[in-house]
Amino acid sequence: DIHASFKPLDETLVAGYVESQPGLVTILGGTSADWNVKEVGDGNLNFVYILTGPKGSFVLKQALPYVRCVGESWPMTLERAYFETTVLREHGRLASHLVPVVYHFDHPMALTVMEYLAPPHIILRKGLIAGTVYPLLAQHMAEFMASTLFHTSLLALSTMKHRKEVAHFCGNIEMCRLTEQVIFTEPYMDAANNRWSSPHLDTDVQALREDSAIKLEIAGLKSKFCERTQALLHGDLHSGSIMVTQNSTKIIDPEFGFYGPMGFDLGAFLGNLILAYISQDGHATSQDDREGYKLWLLKTIGDTWQLFSEKFLVHWDQNWGSGDAYKKEVYNTKDLQLLVQKSFMSELFQDTLGYAAAKMIRRIVGIAHVEDMESISDVEKKVTCERRALTFAKHLLKERSKYSDIRQVCNALQGSR
Amino acid sequence: DIHASFKPLDETLVAGYVESQPGLVTILGGTSADWNVKEVGDGNLNFVYILTGPKGSFVLKQALPYVRCVGESWPMTLERAYFETTVLREHGRLASHLVPVVYHFDHPMALTVMEYLAPPHIILRKGLIAGTVYPLLAQHMAEFMASTLFHTSLLALSTMKHRKEVAHFCGNIEMCRLTEQVIFTEPYMDAANNRWSSPHLDTDVQALREDSAIKLEIAGLKSKFCERTQALLHGDLHSGSIMVTQNSTKIIDPEFGFYGPMGFDLGAFLGNLILAYISQDGHATSQDDREGYKLWLLKTIGDTWQLFSEKFLVHWDQNWGSGDAYKKEVYNTKDLQLLVQKSFMSELFQDTLGYAAAKMIRRIVGIAHVEDMESISDVEKKVTCERRALTFAKHLLKERSKYSDIRQVCNALQGSR
Ligand SMILES: Nc1ncnc2c1ncn2[C@@H]1O[C@H](COP(=O)(O)OP(=O)(O)O)[C@@H](O)[C@H]1O
Ligand SMILES: Nc1ncnc2c1ncn2[C@@H]1O[C@H](COP(=O)(O)OP(=O)(O)O)[C@@H](O)[C@H]1O
Ligand SMILES: [Mg+2]
Ligand SMILES: [Mg+2]
Ligand SMILES: [Mg+2]
Ligand SMILES: [Mg+2]
Ligand SMILES: [Mg+2]
Repeated sequence: DIHASFKPLDETLVAGYVESQPGLVTILGGTSADWNVKEVGDGNLNFVYILTGPKGSFVLKQALPYVRCVGESWPMTLERAYFETTVLREHGRLASHLVPVVYHFDHPMALTVMEYLAPPHIILRKGLIAGTVYPLLAQHMAEFMASTLFHTSLLALSTMKHRKEVAHFCGNIEMCRLTEQVIFTEPYMDAANNRWSSPHLDTDVQALREDSAIKLEIAGLKSKFCERTQALLHGDLHSGSIMVTQNSTKIIDPEFGFYGPMGFDLGAFLGNLILAYISQDGHATSQDDREGYKLWLLKTIGDTWQLFSEKFLVHWDQNWGSGDAYKKEVYNTKDLQLLVQKSFMSELFQDTLGYAAAKMIRRIVGIAHVEDMESISDVEKKVTCERRALTFAKHLLKERSKYSDIRQVCNALQGSR
Repeated sequence: DIHASFKPLDETLVAGYVESQPGLVTILGGTSADWNVKEVGDGNLNFVYILTGPKGSFVLKQALPYVRCVGESWPMTLERAYFETTVLREHGRLASHLVPVVYHFDHPMALTVMEYLAPPHIILRKGLIAGTVYPLLAQHMAEFMASTLFHTSLLALSTMKHRKEVAHFCGNIEMCRLTEQVIFTEPYMDAANNRWSSPHLDTDVQALREDSAIKLEIAGLKSKFCERTQALLHGDLHSGSIMVTQNSTKIIDPEFGFYGPMGFDLGAFLGNLILAYISQDGHATSQDDREGYKLWLLKTIGDTWQLFSEKFLVHWDQNWGSGDAYKKEVYNTKDLQLLVQKSFMSELFQDTLGYAAAKMIRRIVGIAHVEDMESISDVEKKVTCERRALTFAKHLLKERSKYSDIRQVCNALQGSR
């Protein structure tokens, strides 16, 4: 058992652990008496400590063998820390300026030490709720997704390397199962974990559970999630897994990483931006009607897909035939290359819209909600936003084949009620 | 290295090996002096020996570290013997009456000992060329594919078990790469391995290599082959991997087994039946016009899909919710179950037609041809059959979305020229 020597840390024990690691002591400088330790984990799963010393700082993240926000009654594999670190390092290789640097990984302790993303870095979701514009967000996220998804797919890899990586990440099955359960299953049934604004949305929830067309679409998305090993995904790419400043974007927390359909990452990010957009009416005040901010969010949604697809195609154009999927000798004319690229991107667009919708639905009726909605203090306003999100997501899920362009989606979102 | 002690056998060395295995000696009875050894391998890859003794008999199959029909210049992993035996045992568990019993596996020696399928068992392809009717073929093949594909998919398995198996079979990557190369790549480019009836089909081959619509379809099928881990496939299910009598059907040689799209197995079998059908005109004589036989082949093509889909749905109906794909609590009404089943079967039908077409094309213009065509002695007749097969396959590949029923496909085949 790789975790035989596992010990859960806490604020008082962390310094002792760091003292035992000379490389880490060097980063902080001084001795443990000089260090400040603060637990800041606001996520659902793990413990995150910020350590600062006379010379430097870092973040220490430890997984415990259960789900933090639920407790020991919901066990969860320690191996997620291993996969998180493995993905973080791979992302570092592919998009170094968009992820924290990993300094240290302790497998038995399920513990990762990484670059501290100091203030003014904040979690994107909090920035979106505050109404802060991030001018580089779309560009950075497009860059991140284009690079990490392209370079771990068969567009860049040999089938030899790809199948080896697929096999490796099959090991992160418990995290995949959590996603299957809370995103693709429970929202569509009567499950103890579900919660929603009740009684306001009771009939909406009932209608969702009786909607055969929705369940058919969800079946297709779930089976692609479980069976299509298209690229190495972040796996949990919502606005709570991104830290931002005006000129920096950093993607953290890829503990759900595995080989799955690219649209799942794209949909996670876009679905959460759509939730942010719809929640704005709930945050509007007489001083700040948020109308300008809503336009920026719409533009960011559109730009993200647009820039993603441009950048992805640039990678593809620069790497024709480097992966095993499309051999240069077969796809040997510019017209043919354009044809297969167009077909690829349009399937990916459909997947993206589908997963975006699935991600939205589960945030309204499933176990884990989003602060964008939860922080709306006026209940009527909150319920109005939630119902609008649910309605739009259902529409997107069922009618997405009618959309071929992100601008059409943005227009539909803007006009939705 | 698991194969450190590997030694290639030959007709003179086989008995010595068997002598070292008491369990095998017991099956044959007597001593090596009483045994008859005969090499019968007619396949492309491996060596197959029939051993008979006073008490019993068996077949001993050994992989060599290269492709038999090419020689040492084309190396090929010995691990294929391990995967073949693993799949054979799994098939034995799921459809015991349709596969030979495995008696013995020697991993270092890449060697499997299995039940001898004695005459009148012959390779199906030879029976089809001879014009022999096999009344139970469709039923048996439908049974085999329905059972093996259903029970290794997420319709029957938990995602836990499924991902474990997927990871395991990622190890058979070299065999998958061979398929990628000879089925999905080389037929669509100028490759040294390709051969075809030249100069007769030169312009047809040229046209194929310039057909963008075909290459687009092939790209989709190849990516599903590489990325969709839908079920444990046989992986090489043509009429040369099936041995038959009037009342027995046995599926052998699953050395290409891996987790892939179900339609690949279905398409392999149906595509080879279509080749057999089209080749009949080349085998017709004034004594035997083969018209009745052609009708039986058409019926067998239709019945195979029809019976497969019935049997597959029976497995599904009897096992609702046993796999993780469609939870009973979500897919909770008969109407909804019918809706998702219909959608599943119609996607599978499309995949099946696509892979059938791909399998046909590669047999006309790629490295490995079929005896159904090769044994037509009149060159003009042979070329006519080959061109018709190529034309029909291209039609199927491009227009398959217009077919929703196997009878329509059979009618189109019957009317094709
Ligand atoms: N490298 C970092 N720098 C600064 N803060 C971080 C860093 N990593 C995590 N955090 C903080 O800790 C919180 C939880 O981290 P996260 O990796 O998302 O854990 P979880 O897996 O439990 O969701 C984040 O929301 C963020 O506030
Ligand atoms: N169990 C068996 N019983 C009788 N004959 C067999 C058996 N297995 C293989 N053969 C014969 O050996 C030939 C080659 O076997 P096969 O497993 O297809 O090898 P390869 O992998 O080289 O294609 C078959 O076509 C068949 O004639
Ligand atoms: Mg998190
Ligand atoms: Mg979120
Ligand atoms: Mg996390
Ligand atoms: Mg064979
Ligand atoms: Mg074989």
